[in-house]
Amino acid sequence: MTSYRVAVHVVPRRGILDPQGKAVTEALHSLGFAAVAEVHVGRHLVIQTVAADAAAAEASVRAMCAKLLANPVTEDFEIASVVAA
Amino acid sequence: MTSYRVAVHVVPRRGILDPQGKAVTEALHSLGFAAVAEVHVGRHLVIQTVAADAAAAEASVRAMCAKLLANPVTEDFEIASVVAA
Repeated sequence: MTSYRVAVHVVPRRGILDPQGKAVTEALHSLGFAAVAEVHVGRHLVIQTVAADAAAAEASVRAMCAKLLANPVTEDFEIASVVAA
Repeated sequence: MTSYRVAVHVVPRRGILDPQGKAVTEALHSLGFAAVAEVHVGRHLVIQTVAADAAAAEASVRAMCAKLLANPVTEDFEIASVVAA
């Protein structure tokens, strides 16, 4: 059993309203960053877990996302990286 | 001028209490994911902006992080990727 550090991005599904992203875009405009077209705000999770190998670590994090970490109605998730740590 | 999509991770600084990460760790344990040692929760931002080149896009996003997107007292940020989009 090895310790793995798995990074996950949980982001609002495309086409779903992202009010936080809109608010950040407008705040950036009012600070003078006029070149910003769009901002999306999601969550970046780093999960340290013990598993037999990297594939098992990734599979268990996918199960965590489906059960708790991402809202299946409004959010998508992707595994960004799996590194032994 | 080209459009760039810049991804940023904003994470709680090491050593600073991360109550959201602790809450997620405990919730995962109570769902049966006993192998989870630690979870860190941060923000994943994707900023679409127009700039002369990739270096200029990254520099402007660094300025946005310093001014608005990250709390310099409690958070660190890193530019995860800069891609033309």
